[in-house]
Amino acid sequence: MRRTAFFVSDGTAITAETFGHSLLTQFNKVDFREIRLPFVDTEAKAHDAVSLINKAAEAGEDKPLVFSTIVNHKVGRVLTNANAHIFDMFATFMEPLERVLGIESSPRIGRAHGMGDSDTYEDRMEATNYALTHDDGISKRLDKADVILVGVSRSGKTPTCLYLALHYGIKAANYPLTEEDLEQPRLPAFLREHKAKLFGLTIDPERLCKIRETRRPGSRYASVKQCRYEVDAAESLLRAEGVPMLSSTGSSVEELASRIILHLGLQKDAS
Amino acid sequence: MRRTAFFVSDGTAITAETFGHSLLTQFNKVDFREIRLPFVDTEAKAHDAVSLINKAAEAGEDKPLVFSTIVNHKVGRVLTNANAHIFDMFATFMEPLERVLGIESSPRIGRAHGMGDSDTYEDRMEATNYALTHDDGISKRLDKADVILVGVSRSGKTPTCLYLALHYGIKAANYPLTEEDLEQPRLPAFLREHKAKLFGLTIDPERLCKIRETRRPGSRYASVKQCRYEVDAAESLLRAEGVPMLSSTGSSVEELASRIILHLGLQKDAS
Repeated sequence: MRRTAFFVSDGTAITAETFGHSLLTQFNKVDFREIRLPFVDTEAKAHDAVSLINKAAEAGEDKPLVFSTIVNHKVGRVLTNANAHIFDMFATFMEPLERVLGIESSPRIGRAHGMGDSDTYEDRMEATNYALTHDDGISKRLDKADVILVGVSRSGKTPTCLYLALHYGIKAANYPLTEEDLEQPRLPAFLREHKAKLFGLTIDPERLCKIRETRRPGSRYASVKQCRYEVDAAESLLRAEGVPMLSSTGSSVEELASRIILHLGLQKDAS
Repeated sequence: MRRTAFFVSDGTAITAETFGHSLLTQFNKVDFREIRLPFVDTEAKAHDAVSLINKAAEAGEDKPLVFSTIVNHKVGRVLTNANAHIFDMFATFMEPLERVLGIESSPRIGRAHGMGDSDTYEDRMEATNYALTHDDGISKRLDKADVILVGVSRSGKTPTCLYLALHYGIKAANYPLTEEDLEQPRLPAFLREHKAKLFGLTIDPERLCKIRETRRPGSRYASVKQCRYEVDAAESLLRAEGVPMLSSTGSSVEELASRIILHLGLQKDAS
């Protein structure tokens, strides 16, 4: 079963996409083709969107689904002419929210993913720079870190750090445990002095082996034996030091980031 | 006016937060304290969440708002005991969606931000590696790039590339135009051969000056005169080559990424 779903917004359409996609994942028997239509912010663009949606309706057997977060009423009204099932996500919740808050909303487009709170936005950009300059053990000066991810090479530290920075403005450094580190009874001193910020990332050795193979095929670095040794040694070391640990196998960066924030109590105001 | 809003989910709570936050931005007279409660996936954890919410209710004058995307019915039912206005985002749309699709949903937690489609997830991780190894002109081999961002140093290229990679699995390289490049009548040949992939990022010279000041205070690099010269020269060069251009001043990385995808027709299936 195949259906087309459109995420339409007068802003980036990230909200419509995130929420709409979440809903669609609950219908795993349907194969959805998902199309984002951002910046539909004039009636003319809304007419173009309707044409696109109608074309999909004619090509398929069933009406497309449209998830909309269009704020502007005039633009939104044009969309209702489309030959589709329209879910107006904003309108659905705006009325009950206005009632509960006892005030009217002040419709403005694209606030959610704009630069709305510029301090928060600056934090995110600064944190992204921080992640890049404190990636892969580049810098051992970790005083300003909010969190320091520790694990063997290719265990998923870098993408997790970048996600924490770009989304939450969290300054995340990471340090790859080398063979030399793994032969020691304790973690390096420059890590131990930031004990409360340390978080371990581990990985299934077979998975690690596959990832390393694409980097350096046939190398000792990518061998099953070496991967097993490193993962075992790293887990023992982190456990001995009492560092909390998660496995990146079977977890997305979003999940890892959420769990790290929860565990270390790093929550800042949502951005 | 101050209110507390909770985003509660049995998964990462990213969907609840993204959508809830979007709705709240439409009420700019209210100062919301936003708290994410992810991984509320057992009845016991739901009771803990209720306690937290009730504590906020007692501390404040008004009932908190709760935006929930809890999939598990038993867990969700516990939450309804909280002393709060509860917006059950999934339930609201699930019934009409089931009707339209003519099938029942197969409730499963955390699909939206999990590794659901592992190919797509691998693409995102690979693209993130690509962005890191093709950042700041590190590599001039750009055959595999989906997009190449071009602009003066500190115009916002790197965070935009990382966002495109982490979220959309788009391989984004970037190249900083140097003074030497800006003195030439044409863009470097290794860029021109990928003309269709080029996208310019520009920035307000005063803003650029401030950003560079935090990096190298008092330097020629950060001077107003130098920033003006570089921005003018870069814009002229990009215009002459017919490269599309956006300004990062007043635009978030989310907005830039969305516009670049739209312009270059880079849309892949939503991840």
